[in-house]
Amino acid sequence: MIHPTTRVLAAELPGRVGESVEISGWLHRRRGLKSVTFLILRDRSGLAQVVTAGGGPDLPEETVLRVRGTVTANPQAPDGVELTGPEVEVLSSLAEPPPFSLFRPTVPAALPVVLDHAPVALRHPHLSAVHRVSAASVAGFRSTLDGLGFTEIQTPKVVSSATESGANVFALDWFGERAYLAQSPQFFKQTMVGVFERVYETGPVFRAEPHDTARHLAQYTSLDAELGFITDHREVMAVVREAVAGMVAAVAERAFRAVGLLSVELPRVPEEIPWIHFSEAMRLLGADEPDLAPAHERALGEWALREHGSEFLFVVGYPMRKRPFYTHPEPGRPEYSNSFDLLFRGLELVTGGQRLHRHEDYLAALAARGESPEPYASYLAAFAHGMPPHGGFALGLERWTTRLTRADNVRRSTLFPRDLHRLSP
Amino acid sequence: MIHPTTRVLAAELPGRVGESVEISGWLHRRRGLKSVTFLILRDRSGLAQVVTAGGGPDLPEETVLRVRGTVTANPQAPDGVELTGPEVEVLSSLAEPPPFSLFRPTVPAALPVVLDHAPVALRHPHLSAVHRVSAASVAGFRSTLDGLGFTEIQTPKVVSSATESGANVFALDWFGERAYLAQSPQFFKQTMVGVFERVYETGPVFRAEPHDTARHLAQYTSLDAELGFITDHREVMAVVREAVAGMVAAVAERAFRAVGLLSVELPRVPEEIPWIHFSEAMRLLGADEPDLAPAHERALGEWALREHGSEFLFVVGYPMRKRPFYTHPEPGRPEYSNSFDLLFRGLELVTGGQRLHRHEDYLAALAARGESPEPYASYLAAFAHGMPPHGGFALGLERWTTRLTRADNVRRSTLFPRDLHRLSP
Repeated sequence: MIHPTTRVLAAELPGRVGESVEISGWLHRRRGLKSVTFLILRDRSGLAQVVTAGGGPDLPEETVLRVRGTVTANPQAPDGVELTGPEVEVLSSLAEPPPFSLFRPTVPAALPVVLDHAPVALRHPHLSAVHRVSAASVAGFRSTLDGLGFTEIQTPKVVSSATESGANVFALDWFGERAYLAQSPQFFKQTMVGVFERVYETGPVFRAEPHDTARHLAQYTSLDAELGFITDHREVMAVVREAVAGMVAAVAERAFRAVGLLSVELPRVPEEIPWIHFSEAMRLLGADEPDLAPAHERALGEWALREHGSEFLFVVGYPMRKRPFYTHPEPGRPEYSNSFDLLFRGLELVTGGQRLHRHEDYLAALAARGESPEPYASYLAAFAHGMPPHGGFALGLERWTTRLTRADNVRRSTLFPRDLHRLSP
Repeated sequence: MIHPTTRVLAAELPGRVGESVEISGWLHRRRGLKSVTFLILRDRSGLAQVVTAGGGPDLPEETVLRVRGTVTANPQAPDGVELTGPEVEVLSSLAEPPPFSLFRPTVPAALPVVLDHAPVALRHPHLSAVHRVSAASVAGFRSTLDGLGFTEIQTPKVVSSATESGANVFALDWFGERAYLAQSPQFFKQTMVGVFERVYETGPVFRAEPHDTARHLAQYTSLDAELGFITDHREVMAVVREAVAGMVAAVAERAFRAVGLLSVELPRVPEEIPWIHFSEAMRLLGADEPDLAPAHERALGEWALREHGSEFLFVVGYPMRKRPFYTHPEPGRPEYSNSFDLLFRGLELVTGGQRLHRHEDYLAALAARGESPEPYASYLAAFAHGMPPHGGFALGLERWTTRLTRADNVRRSTLFPRDLHRLSP
């Protein structure tokens, strides 16, 4: 580094007792007692207590400070240490106080207010912790798939036709042409199986969701994977299991402070995640529907926990008529499919399955739905030129983090949510 | 794994001499001699030679095959091994032959034709190798910054106002409101310094570039980073150095086969990358301009190689009037800035610098440019509530890969380029 910094992080103080050090951060809380004033400094690693004799500097919370002092053991202090005899320097003062205090156990504001003030609200340790869990999760997803021979890809987010499903797409003007925001990298990742065999992408997808619910976003981060040379969907499920286990392990390792702060109960991921066939699930539920309703998912989640001690459950074999045209049917039972959902704590987390891989099967599937192959020309070309049996899955990052941290709304797991009503900040 | 596969990859064959194994992949090349036929199979690890007595199966290239045979040493074969006594099974046959052969040293087609047929053209080992270099580069960027205490963020790609620069934005309809594709995560990453201190993002950005050149794309992958508690831009430059060195190291380690195939000369990244002040560069060039022209960048690149033996050169202190309003001026010389570009082989690769961090400085900077603070309200709020001195940078992934592999067009480093004329595949 050109400028070696002398800065020490709050979390490093317990190892520096007796030393004179420099810390920097935001004035998280100022508490004046009769004879001393406590300054709690917040940096990216946590909180540090600074003790000044007398009134101490009269600064508003969130002022950016640099403090030099002696690291002193004090069993009563957080982490057992505090900074004494401090010299305090203001790096940045405030133009105005924040719209709410950030030092209380929770942000004293309703969700819409929190979201309106995201740049400052997210400074609250509990709010930022959620996003540290999210970052660790993506890292775990990538490193697991890297280890399994996957190649990361970057695909276009603007496409010429709203192919996968005509509804819920955002239209835009592309140098005078009509274009659409990509709803998923589905077609790209499938064709790239022909190139790299195993691919993943972690990027934004866009759904013009007209629903204003606690689980829908108009932009979310999709963790997508696709792999070739499979026998059927069960190898895809095995990769899903590895990916989810890798995500949990990465959260435990890389975001342990956030896990502690939020009291996140990390799930155990069974070596083999239990599964149930869709038809069997319907029998169990005493229902007869082509898809699972949220109440069904919750009931199945409870069943899996009771019967298998697992917070995860694969539901396999969804009816073909509820799945996209590229879905591979179940051999011998063509009304069902080689597709699956993974439920986590009673909520759909992952959707995936085996895809068709023969060109003629694609033509037949489109014809059966009364669709022309024309808009799919370049996608279909990949299959015309030889594609192996393959399958894949997609996992919504924000939904995962929400469920993992038991948040009440997916917007808590999104730095700057985009939805029906929200286009800023 | 639920289904343990018995499949062996081509690259693993040299370690399996004498064993009976199963390989799978695409028929890359079929060559019939008088008494034997060679089938070259391509999988994600490389090529494997299969020898059949007599004519062998009459299959077109790109057929997807599974082959079982005995790994036999043969010094004349690629990697010194081949599969003999094979049983060949067709996993997928072709509906039609590819538009061009994929087994020749280069794809025998012009770039536009290659791009039109990307799903199949990218199967060519030289074309896919470029993207393996790209994937390794992003991995190196992330792991380096992870190691330096950065947090990964995901920010919105749709924004309510075309704030950073009014020109070259794509407009779209967002539930009846006018919105824009994000040109960069600049404002988001800066405000998130207030939350995580050090952040990065690797994601798509959009520029409605009306230029049809070899170096412009309308969507590209921006590797963005931002860090707080700096003294000035030199600490940002030190992080750029670490990131680039980490990218080169990751390419060497994770994409070594691609590096060999493409004969990529990996650059040495000096411990301290040489730098020159903009004013000194102008003196050296005998020029007097407010910005560097491409010819200037090339000349400076040659100068750095000659004078410092470095393929990298920082140009520091660009004139303020050519930099965005959030740029921090150079102390004592306010017509210059604490900003920089990193040139790599004579081409701009990275742009970065120190930003303003005081609320009043932002208000003054906007006023000086005759701009209202109103559209920037939520961005400015972060500064009103205390932000440390900070800076950051952005690196264009496709431009990096293009320069590293010495490709002639940035579209060679993009799986599915998007530009003035190209919106598919």
